[in-house]
Amino acid sequence: MLKGIHPLLGPDLLHAIRSMGHGDDIVIVDANFPAAFLGPKVVRADGVDAVSMTEAILAHMPLDTFVAEAAWRMEVVGDPGAEPEVCVAFQQAVHRLAGDFKVHSVERFAFYEMARKAACIVATTEFRLYGNIILKKGVVHPHEIFRA
Amino acid sequence: MLKGIHPLLGPDLLHAIRSMGHGDDIVIVDANFPAAFLGPKVVRADGVDAVSMTEAILAHMPLDTFVAEAAWRMEVVGDPGAEPEVCVAFQQAVHRLAGDFKVHSVERFAFYEMARKAACIVATTEFRLYGNIILKKGVVHPHEIFRA
Repeated sequence: MLKGIHPLLGPDLLHAIRSMGHGDDIVIVDANFPAAFLGPKVVRADGVDAVSMTEAILAHMPLDTFVAEAAWRMEVVGDPGAEPEVCVAFQQAVHRLAGDFKVHSVERFAFYEMARKAACIVATTEFRLYGNIILKKGVVHPHEIFRA
Repeated sequence: MLKGIHPLLGPDLLHAIRSMGHGDDIVIVDANFPAAFLGPKVVRADGVDAVSMTEAILAHMPLDTFVAEAAWRMEVVGDPGAEPEVCVAFQQAVHRLAGDFKVHSVERFAFYEMARKAACIVATTEFRLYGNIILKKGVVHPHEIFRA
């Protein structure tokens, strides 16, 4: 572990989010998501739920303020107006840690297409269906840079 | 870059120090040090000086309180009592960021032997001779763990 860095961020995930730049996307997915063969590098987070992982990443990664949308979750198949409890928790985590961003819903196969272009997929053991979220990285402004 | 994480820690170096556990050593070396063929994985930090890199690592890595010595620098060849200015700066950085630890001096070839057993060598562009330091990682106690 390290001082001042969220402990759920292991070596590979720290490497991935530090490598990402402005506008790059990261996908945090549940235990049913077809992560391994979609294309992007996969970081395993077995035993961790998707909301906790979202909180860990948002503790250190700002969302993108340069675009209209910077966070997305998967729409419920056959019930596009539904908002599963895990998605409510995603929205609360985003509000608490990233600011005034809405988590937009995206149709299942469109979500897969977005995920294909991401920098990284984090495969959690989230049991709850629709526990998938895409986050677009924003910028750290010069005055926000960490100094020892 | 990431929020709350020192910007000199790039993806590979974050990966390395997050992979290290209690008692593992990291070596930060100057531009003359024979880093590449010593054995441990080398992370390049070209353009960065060794004191700044030491500060970046100590911002997130505690030193080991379980042992009598947790930081070492290379002794001046032919003048073992000398303390070069860069070593004074190492000691100041250690006091400021890690606490009441002495940076002990170690004879040149003994320093190489210690470096061979390290987890990682960070190769800087430190111009000043004897700009080399070994740091032993300590523990992050449960009450010190970062929470979002």
